[in-house]
Amino acid sequence: MENQPVFIGVIGGSEVSPEVARLAEEVGREIARRGAVLVCGGLTGVMEAACKGASEEGGLTVGILPGDSRRAANPYVKIPIVTGIGYARNVAVVKSSQAVIAIDGSYGTLTEIGHALQSGIPAIGLGTWSISMDGKPDKNIIIAKNPKEAVDIAMKSIKDS
Amino acid sequence: MENQPVFIGVIGGSEVSPEVARLAEEVGREIARRGAVLVCGGLTGVMEAACKGASEEGGLTVGILPGDSRRAANPYVKIPIVTGIGYARNVAVVKSSQAVIAIDGSYGTLTEIGHALQSGIPAIGLGTWSISMDGKPDKNIIIAKNPKEAVDIAMKSIKDS
Amino acid sequence: MENQPVFIGVIGGSEVSPEVARLAEEVGREIARRGAVLVCGGLTGVMEAACKGASEEGGLTVGILPGDSRRAANPYVKIPIVTGIGYARNVAVVKSSQAVIAIDGSYGTLTEIGHALQSGIPAIGLGTWSISMDGKPDKNIIIAKNPKEAVDIAMKSIKDS
Amino acid sequence: MENQPVFIGVIGGSEVSPEVARLAEEVGREIARRGAVLVCGGLTGVMEAACKGASEEGGLTVGILPGDSRRAANPYVKIPIVTGIGYARNVAVVKSSQAVIAIDGSYGTLTEIGHALQSGIPAIGLGTWSISMDGKPDKNIIIAKNPKEAVDIAMKSIKDS
Repeated sequence: MENQPVFIGVIGGSEVSPEVARLAEEVGREIARRGAVLVCGGLTGVMEAACKGASEEGGLTVGILPGDSRRAANPYVKIPIVTGIGYARNVAVVKSSQAVIAIDGSYGTLTEIGHALQSGIPAIGLGTWSISMDGKPDKNIIIAKNPKEAVDIAMKSIKDS
Repeated sequence: MENQPVFIGVIGGSEVSPEVARLAEEVGREIARRGAVLVCGGLTGVMEAACKGASEEGGLTVGILPGDSRRAANPYVKIPIVTGIGYARNVAVVKSSQAVIAIDGSYGTLTEIGHALQSGIPAIGLGTWSISMDGKPDKNIIIAKNPKEAVDIAMKSIKDS
Repeated sequence: MENQPVFIGVIGGSEVSPEVARLAEEVGREIARRGAVLVCGGLTGVMEAACKGASEEGGLTVGILPGDSRRAANPYVKIPIVTGIGYARNVAVVKSSQAVIAIDGSYGTLTEIGHALQSGIPAIGLGTWSISMDGKPDKNIIIAKNPKEAVDIAMKSIKDS
Repeated sequence: MENQPVFIGVIGGSEVSPEVARLAEEVGREIARRGAVLVCGGLTGVMEAACKGASEEGGLTVGILPGDSRRAANPYVKIPIVTGIGYARNVAVVKSSQAVIAIDGSYGTLTEIGHALQSGIPAIGLGTWSISMDGKPDKNIIIAKNPKEAVDIAMKSIKDS
């Protein structure tokens, strides 16, 4: 596997504000600048903005789609994976990534954060869900201040693993 | 489908304290007393305790298993569903339920809460995860004070839907 | 698991001739007469006819559905499992069965026969696909002459396993 | 999606004779020579030989893995997709391909042929399963005489679709 690049997932909702889209696009750019492959759910919103950023920097983008058609992929997905398994594909988005960056987020993003934490895959948050149990915040979601820091943390966590 | 009973999911971790197991067992009893079918992930911990309670009241229990063998089911599962799809089976546990009751909880439980909220399936919490975005708590997890109230809320939400 | 009944799968296409439907219904009846639970894909055609037969004999029927709604289940399904994973649910239909009876069949049935043979689950054929490699017929699909014989073979193979 | 390449699947067993491995390797070479991306299940046997051939011609290879670890990928997989859904991943291998070439084959390959025929994805056979119903051979598996012809048929069927 020496020939395999590094894989970083970007997870987030399919409907986002322009501000969140700009964050996601910058995360995509940073991933591509490190030579890493961007993995995502392949649809719109955070996924599309991140793929756009990565694509414009010449990076490779993988979109793991829930439905039955590659046509559902956003235009910046280079490698569409057509699973046909619906939102169970969230597991594959997470497991195909060596670290995930959660931006903003829908309830689907919450499921992906859960799968990452369960599988021991570093989850880095950029304005995403906070979770707590019995009033105690869970510290396993690593908070990043900006896109560059989020990708720095992801790359470092992969290198250290 | 007039011949179909009501289906209530119980979600929670596979390793639990005796106190949490007692809560889960009582939830199972209450589900069976209403004539509802208990749906769960079929393994140990919260799942086993809830199945035990339902079973002792003569209720029907469905365990949707992640692996390849029915032997992994806890002894109180009457109908084991062997999916072979790993933790992607969490989606099926949730979608097969008309309401879910989350008790305590691992990160897997967090994924199930996310799938329920995403699918518009009522999620009732009994000492489980709280989630918030930008410091604002998400109010869509309905907090119950005890097992009886949790099942009351589940039954009412199904009847009203 | 002493309290678990025997589970027999019935697989076949969703559009069938009246003649094939009669075969499937009779298979369902025979399964219920032995006290076994009928497992199927929960939809129309062979699945509905088999569930009808089992249901009329007082048997329990499980329908493992591909989509997101329990409403897609045929009216004779008692326990609908809502997977949301599309045709990947074929794996769960097979693995949840201790033997499968293939009647007639679409290409979906062919996938289920393949999963059964791969998993070492007895596959009994009633007018279904024949498969061969390099001109040599594969003998692992057990041919039954009629519904009663098909269920006899299924029950015997489960008892012997 | 103008920037997306063509995707051709190669399906076949994980244990193969040297002769079958040579066929698979040549199929992989031919796929890479046309600039298409090779999609497969990512493991050994036919999958590894095809990835080796494609890789040596500078082609891109995608391996859609059943388990939880990218380490299970054969060394010629460039893009490992870690699904964690077991053999239900066969559906994703097929749906992510615009045509599939079946070489030799286990029962798993039979499931993939079934999924391709069910989804209307061209299935080209190179010494693989034949299927028949009521003594009538199914003509929808297109027989190729050699690796080059198999890839020619795949490319033509994609162009015509």
